[in-house]
Amino acid sequence: MIQIFTTGGTIDKVYFDANSEFEVGHSLLPELLSESNIHEGYRLRELLRKDSLEMTDSDRQLVLQAARECDCARIVITHGTDTMADTAAVLAGLSDKTIVLTGAMQPARMRRTDAVFNVGFAWAAVQLLPPGVYIVMNGEVFEAGAVRKNLHAQRFERT
Amino acid sequence: MIQIFTTGGTIDKVYFDANSEFEVGHSLLPELLSESNIHEGYRLRELLRKDSLEMTDSDRQLVLQAARECDCARIVITHGTDTMADTAAVLAGLSDKTIVLTGAMQPARMRRTDAVFNVGFAWAAVQLLPPGVYIVMNGEVFEAGAVRKNLHAQRFERT
Amino acid sequence: MIQIFTTGGTIDKVYFDANSEFEVGHSLLPELLSESNIHEGYRLRELLRKDSLEMTDSDRQLVLQAARECDCARIVITHGTDTMADTAAVLAGLSDKTIVLTGAMQPARMRRTDAVFNVGFAWAAVQLLPPGVYIVMNGEVFEAGAVRKNLHAQRFERT
Amino acid sequence: MIQIFTTGGTIDKVYFDANSEFEVGHSLLPELLSESNIHEGYRLRELLRKDSLEMTDSDRQLVLQAARECDCARIVITHGTDTMADTAAVLAGLSDKTIVLTGAMQPARMRRTDAVFNVGFAWAAVQLLPPGVYIVMNGEVFEAGAVRKNLHAQRFERT
Repeated sequence: MIQIFTTGGTIDKVYFDANSEFEVGHSLLPELLSESNIHEGYRLRELLRKDSLEMTDSDRQLVLQAARECDCARIVITHGTDTMADTAAVLAGLSDKTIVLTGAMQPARMRRTDAVFNVGFAWAAVQLLPPGVYIVMNGEVFEAGAVRKNLHAQRFERT
Repeated sequence: MIQIFTTGGTIDKVYFDANSEFEVGHSLLPELLSESNIHEGYRLRELLRKDSLEMTDSDRQLVLQAARECDCARIVITHGTDTMADTAAVLAGLSDKTIVLTGAMQPARMRRTDAVFNVGFAWAAVQLLPPGVYIVMNGEVFEAGAVRKNLHAQRFERT
Repeated sequence: MIQIFTTGGTIDKVYFDANSEFEVGHSLLPELLSESNIHEGYRLRELLRKDSLEMTDSDRQLVLQAARECDCARIVITHGTDTMADTAAVLAGLSDKTIVLTGAMQPARMRRTDAVFNVGFAWAAVQLLPPGVYIVMNGEVFEAGAVRKNLHAQRFERT
Repeated sequence: MIQIFTTGGTIDKVYFDANSEFEVGHSLLPELLSESNIHEGYRLRELLRKDSLEMTDSDRQLVLQAARECDCARIVITHGTDTMADTAAVLAGLSDKTIVLTGAMQPARMRRTDAVFNVGFAWAAVQLLPPGVYIVMNGEVFEAGAVRKNLHAQRFERT
């Protein structure tokens, strides 16, 4: 059983014409998983619906608590990319679960997006990595506390 | 460095109106990887361009030879799903490389497809699995020789 | 009120992995129209579900009869491109309705397709053209009886 | 020959992760037309790249001037939906050309969008309507000066 926690971020942004802008919508993950023939073996809970630049310490504690209390040993967290490394660092103390954070540079609802690849990558990573906290982006696995988002290059890299 | 070998299969099928049918086209993998911000760290070679129901023992030997001679320790092979388990079984003797076979039930060129998720899943699996030969489909990892395609359920399962 | 009659063709082809081939599926038109904010003002009836190379004289008479008996003055017919001109010629006698035939070179279910553009084009054409029978493809309007599909160039042209 | 003038709007919005927001990008029209087998018979010029809420009287005069000086008798203008009716009203004096304004509620780069249907609809409308200025949205033709965007219903309607 894999537990998915969604917190928002670009991956789940929807375009609202009424506001002339993009806002985080409901998670597209169940639809993406279903399109990939995965219909069971996971639970999904929305913790937050925020752009990660707006996440507070209190929000990160909420994520930590949910991960800590979760009875699954394998957790995938979708998250905005801007402060994903910060949330990963807050979770880094947890040592009895495999926790994989991922997100996307382009919303999953776009014709061209990295979202689906990243979710597939995370789905394998959470099953294969030993207990610990990780970020998976641009086709690589990073350990929490040793990763950052390189804004200029628009990719994640080891620190 | 990850080596990709493409052999054809549904994943790369293209609709040719002139023939009123679907045929295997060039691999969409470089485009999919690029959309997911992966531009380097791999090589791709097309071995075959066949529907896997048409693959012969000779074709499978060609794949085995390419895998054997490859100087990469990590290989992803895209393949039609109908006889993917057969090719995996032929490769099963190789013990010094991590070889992951994947494909798709719906062509990568469709609006709704499992192709992108499967490629993302395979990209993680090939980096994280120990040496051996595996099939990854419907979000699971299967060992070569102990997997089959359940035609009725349209998914792969352990034998 | 616009009446839609669907007869099959590439536009509605679906990939069935179990058969390793493409077959005509249910029409995607209601979904396409809904995505374009059109939820009413039309009726849809499936007359046939055939690749147009398999349509018989009897099939074309069925289409003619449906068009003749239809109480709408505006009819859109989706049809395979290979023999669309033949069906248009059979309908050409009808002079009291605006009948527009269209289809697609790539299934509507593909990421890249002409289907949606063609349906939008047909939706305008059926409202703006005077009574008569027309084919609309590759962004042009053709009169029934004076059009053919140029197989080599993969487009429709005036004869 | 059809002249396309692009002014921006939702239809051409692109998601820029670096800014965590959507901005108007280059027009997707050439790509959309090419996917629909239209490779010639038109010219495209970008006049502006603005969200239509930010268009000024000066901007609308620029559009008017471009339309007036254009030597084509048929013009398609892509435009943000929020003030499309205002620009149409400014153009309404032109009586020697067929001018069709359209746009989209969802960016053309989304998986689900009305953009492609609207462009197809406009492509037919500009060829079939008599000289005058029109808006085409949600599958209908509206005359400039007698149309508004119903924000609540998210559609265009006659005034």
